[in-house]
Amino acid sequence: MTLDTARTIVSAAREVVDGAVARLAASASKDGRISIELVDREQQLAYDLASAASRVAAAEQMLDYGEKGGLQARLTLAFAGEMAADLAARLAGREDDWDLSADAAWNGEGFATAFRAARDTALLEELGEEVSRTTELPSALNEEMSMVRGTFRDFAETRVKAVAEHVHRNDADIPDDIITELAEMGCFGLSIPEEHGGFAEGHSENDFMSMVVVTEELSRGSLGVAGSLITRPEILSKALVGGGTEEQKERWLPAIAAGELMCGVAVTEPDYGSDVAGIKVQAIKDGDDYVVNGVKTWCTFGGKANLLMLLARTDPDRSKAHKGLSLFVVEKPSFPGHSWEYESPLGGRMEAKAIPTLGYRGMHSFEISFEDYRIPAANVVGGEEKLGKGFYLQMDAFANGRLQTAARATGVMQAAFEAAATYAGERHVFGVPLASYGLTRTKLGRMAAIIAASRTFSYRSAQLLGAGSGQMEASMVKAFSCLAAEWVTREAMQIHGGFGYAEEYAVSRYFVDARVLSIFEGADEVLALRVIIRKLLQDALDAG
Amino acid sequence: MTLDTARTIVSAAREVVDGAVARLAASASKDGRISIELVDREQQLAYDLASAASRVAAAEQMLDYGEKGGLQARLTLAFAGEMAADLAARLAGREDDWDLSADAAWNGEGFATAFRAARDTALLEELGEEVSRTTELPSALNEEMSMVRGTFRDFAETRVKAVAEHVHRNDADIPDDIITELAEMGCFGLSIPEEHGGFAEGHSENDFMSMVVVTEELSRGSLGVAGSLITRPEILSKALVGGGTEEQKERWLPAIAAGELMCGVAVTEPDYGSDVAGIKVQAIKDGDDYVVNGVKTWCTFGGKANLLMLLARTDPDRSKAHKGLSLFVVEKPSFPGHSWEYESPLGGRMEAKAIPTLGYRGMHSFEISFEDYRIPAANVVGGEEKLGKGFYLQMDAFANGRLQTAARATGVMQAAFEAAATYAGERHVFGVPLASYGLTRTKLGRMAAIIAASRTFSYRSAQLLGAGSGQMEASMVKAFSCLAAEWVTREAMQIHGGFGYAEEYAVSRYFVDARVLSIFEGADEVLALRVIIRKLLQDALDAG
Ligand SMILES: Cc1cc2nc3c(=O)[nH]c(=O)nc-3n(C[C@H](O)[C@H](O)[C@H](O)COP(=O)(O)OP(=O)(O)OC[C@H]3O[C@@H](n4cnc5c(N)ncnc54)[C@H](O)[C@@H]3O)c2cc1C
Ligand SMILES: Cc1cc2nc3c(=O)[nH]c(=O)nc-3n(C[C@H](O)[C@H](O)[C@H](O)COP(=O)(O)OP(=O)(O)OC[C@H]3O[C@@H](n4cnc5c(N)ncnc54)[C@H](O)[C@@H]3O)c2cc1C
Ligand SMILES: CC(C)(COP(=O)(O)OP(=O)(O)OC[C@H]1O[C@@H](n2cnc3c(N)ncnc32)[C@H](O)[C@@H]1OP(=O)(O)O)[C@@H](O)C(=O)NCCC(=O)NCCS
Ligand SMILES: CC(C)(COP(=O)(O)OP(=O)(O)OC[C@H]1O[C@@H](n2cnc3c(N)ncnc32)[C@H](O)[C@@H]1OP(=O)(O)O)[C@@H](O)C(=O)NCCC(=O)NCCS
Repeated sequence: MTLDTARTIVSAAREVVDGAVARLAASASKDGRISIELVDREQQLAYDLASAASRVAAAEQMLDYGEKGGLQARLTLAFAGEMAADLAARLAGREDDWDLSADAAWNGEGFATAFRAARDTALLEELGEEVSRTTELPSALNEEMSMVRGTFRDFAETRVKAVAEHVHRNDADIPDDIITELAEMGCFGLSIPEEHGGFAEGHSENDFMSMVVVTEELSRGSLGVAGSLITRPEILSKALVGGGTEEQKERWLPAIAAGELMCGVAVTEPDYGSDVAGIKVQAIKDGDDYVVNGVKTWCTFGGKANLLMLLARTDPDRSKAHKGLSLFVVEKPSFPGHSWEYESPLGGRMEAKAIPTLGYRGMHSFEISFEDYRIPAANVVGGEEKLGKGFYLQMDAFANGRLQTAARATGVMQAAFEAAATYAGERHVFGVPLASYGLTRTKLGRMAAIIAASRTFSYRSAQLLGAGSGQMEASMVKAFSCLAAEWVTREAMQIHGGFGYAEEYAVSRYFVDARVLSIFEGADEVLALRVIIRKLLQDALDAG
Repeated sequence: MTLDTARTIVSAAREVVDGAVARLAASASKDGRISIELVDREQQLAYDLASAASRVAAAEQMLDYGEKGGLQARLTLAFAGEMAADLAARLAGREDDWDLSADAAWNGEGFATAFRAARDTALLEELGEEVSRTTELPSALNEEMSMVRGTFRDFAETRVKAVAEHVHRNDADIPDDIITELAEMGCFGLSIPEEHGGFAEGHSENDFMSMVVVTEELSRGSLGVAGSLITRPEILSKALVGGGTEEQKERWLPAIAAGELMCGVAVTEPDYGSDVAGIKVQAIKDGDDYVVNGVKTWCTFGGKANLLMLLARTDPDRSKAHKGLSLFVVEKPSFPGHSWEYESPLGGRMEAKAIPTLGYRGMHSFEISFEDYRIPAANVVGGEEKLGKGFYLQMDAFANGRLQTAARATGVMQAAFEAAATYAGERHVFGVPLASYGLTRTKLGRMAAIIAASRTFSYRSAQLLGAGSGQMEASMVKAFSCLAAEWVTREAMQIHGGFGYAEEYAVSRYFVDARVLSIFEGADEVLALRVIIRKLLQDALDAG
């Protein structure tokens, strides 16, 4: 029953989204291709549509989760209500843009009744009451994955949480032993194929599952100290697996997997962030070397890293745009602290300074300037053959980063939810526990539904990515989960009243940490307007 | 036309809110009085209703503003669309709770057409384009107030902004010369009646206007360094004007107005924040003194302050609840820094330590413990006669604090909006200015509409308060503006991409500063559920 109600909502929402996608695809195509210029003429719609489609996709995954038990079904229904309410708010007054008038499912009594059931405050309050008793939502993991999860949860609980506040409040380095122990636990090779020293089967649905599970647990401990350590090796190893020469794979992958080599990603530049194809840093061939000049920025962990994944322009003809870019591995020593400089043994130098940020502290994000810095030609990822193909390798690799970022968001949300539920149970306001009030319960119930959806969708996206597809889904789950994390951490903080604003309470850190998630790894708007909607529209066009 | 369309929307929304208020009043009353226990049974509805009613009230004020010109009318229409979309989202699927089915205005074609016009993305995009060219929205101030505004804007621009980042990032003290100069400019006596050395006429519609205007400008410079300096003298002087003895007025008001005495407010305790009536700190009569014991917390500016407004329990019988509380003025020396202690010349001590916070830095908020601390009986506000009346004086005084906080929110929003508009004009993404994209423009247009509404509503609330009413409106505008400031600063930050997360960009500070606004001066939920809805429901009941 509960699940049928959820199904009614989800399928009505699916129709709405598909209808609007078809409408926009028709008006934004030229010669059978989607034209981004035409899409940009209706940016608000395109953005809303991509965002709504991501939530519908999440809700669809929840329908499977909902079959596993009563609580799961109620979480699914509650999430369907969240999703549909969000969709209704986007639509309101803009039904024509969405081509909605004819949609029988959405306008019918069936949907209305189901939606009422999903939005019922009694449902949400009961859910809130139930989930805050345990705060651990029913898991959909198999036994093996549950064990992995348990191991990393323990580590996060005992080791990561112990240093999280110190690192955050002092903008300190991550303690070396955290990194060493995580390396011993295999944390850096979770989606590197076994043949290259990692733990993944290679081209299997399971390849990214443990990465997602582990990331979530570590991020629950701290986004800055642990949960994000995995992002960079994920991105670099994906590019190496996909595009590196055999020799490069041999040389770097096992060492990355073993946590012997730390990684950084140097794509963004001061003038180019979302628009990767526009970057200016040059790497010009000179003898057996490439000579790099220019400034990269926001290179997280760039100090500690031994390997920087550097995207640079090897073809000085800027009209080649993304086709003039190549990918490099820059080898360097590991440096602690907030600034460093290094001279290449081959000549030239890098100079780097960390950018102070609101949160996401510990790894430090560096602006790095390259001055005639020399890299051996052997460090072009994929060798000569892949010159000019750097952009494609980079994009492909970002999918891993995005999926991983969704899992980071889930971890931060889970931590905030637990803190809020615990605090609400203990704090008395006007003589009774805060958790006994309907509004508090509704908030906790909604948080739980959103977290379950984020987690479920990230598992599904991991499977798709493992099977070789799922690029769009990785962006969808990233966009959805990261925005959701802003809301969940905000409400968790609000539940703490004044104490939520105190740095001594972890929830204040969750809030500022969560804020970065919708900015990096593809800013929210860019994923919506340049990745998700494009694929949705092109698929609609291709389907006829 | 534009304005008529806005009117149609606002009056339909008014009907919806009034209808739901009537419905809830009927089910939450007992013996002709509203029972908060019964309201609490429908907290989500009560919260949504109070929040929606606050926005409807803001939109109603915008209708006057909209008459002043074409741009004003379009801002009004855009805000009406915002308000109605927010209302629609709260209602969705919960129409029965809201007793909505019979509402002809909301369900009719007239509203639907008007709502479509208000939600039209072309309207919002054009608005965004237009407002980002100047970023100064058309003002509704008279010449005198415009001059006041200009003076403080200059001060904020040259003096406050110059130190804002330093103070924030170092959690430093506010430089003394900022305070001295503001004192010379009359900043601390803006709503103290002339007869007591201030600038207000007393019981006039204009009494709070300059306070609101000045607060906004200073907060535009920095919430922590300048915009919040006015809050505490506002609260204390309101209580003294309303309840102090003639001698007390003489003694303190002129010195407060002249900025010779800085003020702090010590109401909140570790276990009691929203529930003021529950506080535990005791002040027990002993000879000519009161002896204070217990812990106050979050006493902002408590170090620098010469006067602490202390609410304490003078009647040890806790069953008297709020009727056992009295208000004191504690005189103390001014201390710089993050901790201090002081022995009363009459005996006993205070010890204080600042609580590190995410933002709102400069004034420092202290936990203060009182140990047998003696205050002369002459410092009971209102003297013997007002013993046990402290709660009422405090509540009455909070109205000033809330109105002032709304103006703080407007100032922070205005600063964030300007930063975002400027940045979007300069930053190029995918080859064109960020400001040329529809989504960016829509965001900027919405920000402007929200800011105009917040400002307009705060002016109106100032008039009401000056005229002796407007307690509920002060809470409404506070609740609405503070939540709005969270959204505006968030979007302004997002427009900055990665740089928004960097502490070197002021927008990152606006974001963390804004976050405190919905927590203090009456947490958002508490204003909705304990002040606004109560008054709305009781009025409905009284009206029959
Ligand atoms: C803490 C932190 C760590 C980071 N770590 C790394 C790292 O390790 N390696 C690395 O390479 N980079 C890193 N980044 C950079 C990050 O990936 C970029 O900040 C991000 O891609 C956005 O780019 P930008 O900052 O240049 O913003 P811009 O591209 O300038 O975008 C500004 C705003 O405009 C919006 N926008 C962009 N295009 C459009 C459009 N067409 N229409 C409408 N709106 C649009 C964006 O969504 C954003 O809101 C990091 C950033 C941060 C803050
Ligand atoms: C930076 C800062 C400066 C401050 N400055 C001062 C100052 O100068 N002087 C001073 O006296 N105080 C000050 N405060 C304290 C502030 O006023 C309180 O934090 C605020 O009133 C909330 O109280 P609380 O923190 O105890 O939260 P609680 O009262 O414990 O509330 C916790 C949460 O529960 C919600 N809630 C409360 N009641 C209900 C209910 N019935 N139903 C549902 N939800 C409910 C609240 O909205 C909040 O979200 C300051 C606070 C901060 C953070
Ligand atoms: C916006 C963005 C998706 C690319 O947009 P764009 O410049 O319009 O590029 P296009 O989508 O036109 O793609 C250019 C080419 O790359 C290919 N491509 C796009 N996405 C790809 C992917 N995921 N995998 C492989 N190839 C891809 C396209 O097929 C196209 O190929 P073609 O030119 O040979 O036909 C990309 O710049 C991006 O992801 N930006 C965000 C940056 C980011 O995440 N940074 C995080 C750093 S931590
Ligand atoms: C929640 C809150 C409004 C009071 O709720 P409460 O304890 O339920 O109190 P009540 O509303 O029942 O009011 C108790 C009495 O005070 C009176 N009162 C309430 N608001 C008043 C006001 N604004 N002015 C004067 N008297 C007021 C009531 O009429 C009632 O009088 P009675 O007992 O003589 O009949 C109050 O505690 C509050 O404002 N909390 C937020 C605290 C805050 O803003 N802190 C900021 C510190 S910076």
